[in-house]
Amino acid sequence: MISVLLIGKGNVGSHLYNAFLNADGITVTQISARNLENIPQADLTIIAVSDDAIAEVSSKIKNDLVVHTSGSVSINDLKNDSRKGVFYMLQTFSKDKKVDFSEVPFCLEAENINDYKTLEIVAKSIGKKIYPISSEQRNTLHVAAVFVNNFTNHLYKIGNDICKENKVPFEILHSLIKETASKIETLSPEKSQTGPAIRNDEKTIKNHLNLLDKNQQEIYKIFTKLIQNGDKL
Amino acid sequence: MISVLLIGKGNVGSHLYNAFLNADGITVTQISARNLENIPQADLTIIAVSDDAIAEVSSKIKNDLVVHTSGSVSINDLKNDSRKGVFYMLQTFSKDKKVDFSEVPFCLEAENINDYKTLEIVAKSIGKKIYPISSEQRNTLHVAAVFVNNFTNHLYKIGNDICKENKVPFEILHSLIKETASKIETLSPEKSQTGPAIRNDEKTIKNHLNLLDKNQQEIYKIFTKLIQNGDKL
Repeated sequence: MISVLLIGKGNVGSHLYNAFLNADGITVTQISARNLENIPQADLTIIAVSDDAIAEVSSKIKNDLVVHTSGSVSINDLKNDSRKGVFYMLQTFSKDKKVDFSEVPFCLEAENINDYKTLEIVAKSIGKKIYPISSEQRNTLHVAAVFVNNFTNHLYKIGNDICKENKVPFEILHSLIKETASKIETLSPEKSQTGPAIRNDEKTIKNHLNLLDKNQQEIYKIFTKLIQNGDKL
Repeated sequence: MISVLLIGKGNVGSHLYNAFLNADGITVTQISARNLENIPQADLTIIAVSDDAIAEVSSKIKNDLVVHTSGSVSINDLKNDSRKGVFYMLQTFSKDKKVDFSEVPFCLEAENINDYKTLEIVAKSIGKKIYPISSEQRNTLHVAAVFVNNFTNHLYKIGNDICKENKVPFEILHSLIKETASKIETLSPEKSQTGPAIRNDEKTIKNHLNLLDKNQQEIYKIFTKLIQNGDKL
């Protein structure tokens, strides 16, 4: 049995807590980051709080092995005196949407092999995809995730705006959006690229620009240039 | 029985042909757009050729009802003397990837209700999601599709580049990419937005910019601005 203490009751903390409740070989306790006067003992303490609070929260913990769950905070930003690590799940968590942990990549980091093995056992109790990832590699993943998640979602927003402005149901695009995402599992994004920009289809590009407002036109032009010039703006 | 003639042997033509072969109530013939000397008779003639070739190919057809499959060509660009329509499938087709037509939205347009009903029967023989869409609405969908498919795929390419440059497996991001795409089926893109830009997390934004090359930095700055300023550049 490995005892896990979860600190934080936000999205990540709550989803993790529910998953650990049903996991074999794990006992789990959850406390709020606002109430750190009595911190229970545990084999593994997982701090699931906002990036800015990690240093302060960790400084108050005396337990043996303390990890955070952030994609952009270094292992060295943990301020506990005991052993450190990172338990980063590269996924987008929403309050109301169930998480399928078997699909979530766990990016683990520890200071020694025994601690790494503990993190691995805990991750495997709820998940399947486990990767040893250094703080430097995690930075890379985090910034790449901003492109493929945050910025992509903003493109969805623009697509939604265009549909709304012209009274066309955005749901017609859902299937294309999902297919675009699935396609790169079998084909590289480079080989998946289609559309007027890569085809140099000037006529369609001109037609499209006429349908857009000024800001949308700017974004359209930027991406057309990026796709045609190999990312040179 | 409705007889369908498919003109064109590219991605769209080939996937449609295979689907119609297994469809109830449909007989299908396929010919190449390069060989239009003997055009077979058919109830419905579907021209699945490149946008630029639609006018010329359609001008050679004497069959009763002629439709094209393009997202960006007007119904009026068909140059047959008989009745016209559009049979547009809003999906990305790849040569080597099987198409699940039950997931593909069929955007149909015709000049009269009887022809629309014919198109609907043909679409329903292989698909489930059928929408009556005017040429104007189709233009809207097509330009929105460029944002959510072509431009999104380019963001995947940048994510892949960042991973490659830093020797991190891009596959770690696949699950996030699929989840980002699925999320908007239950939550609007506006409500789905997460990340350092929307949080105004200046520290993370600065860290991220330090990890990127000059062109990637520009794109990162543009999106951060778009997300923070409601699409004003």
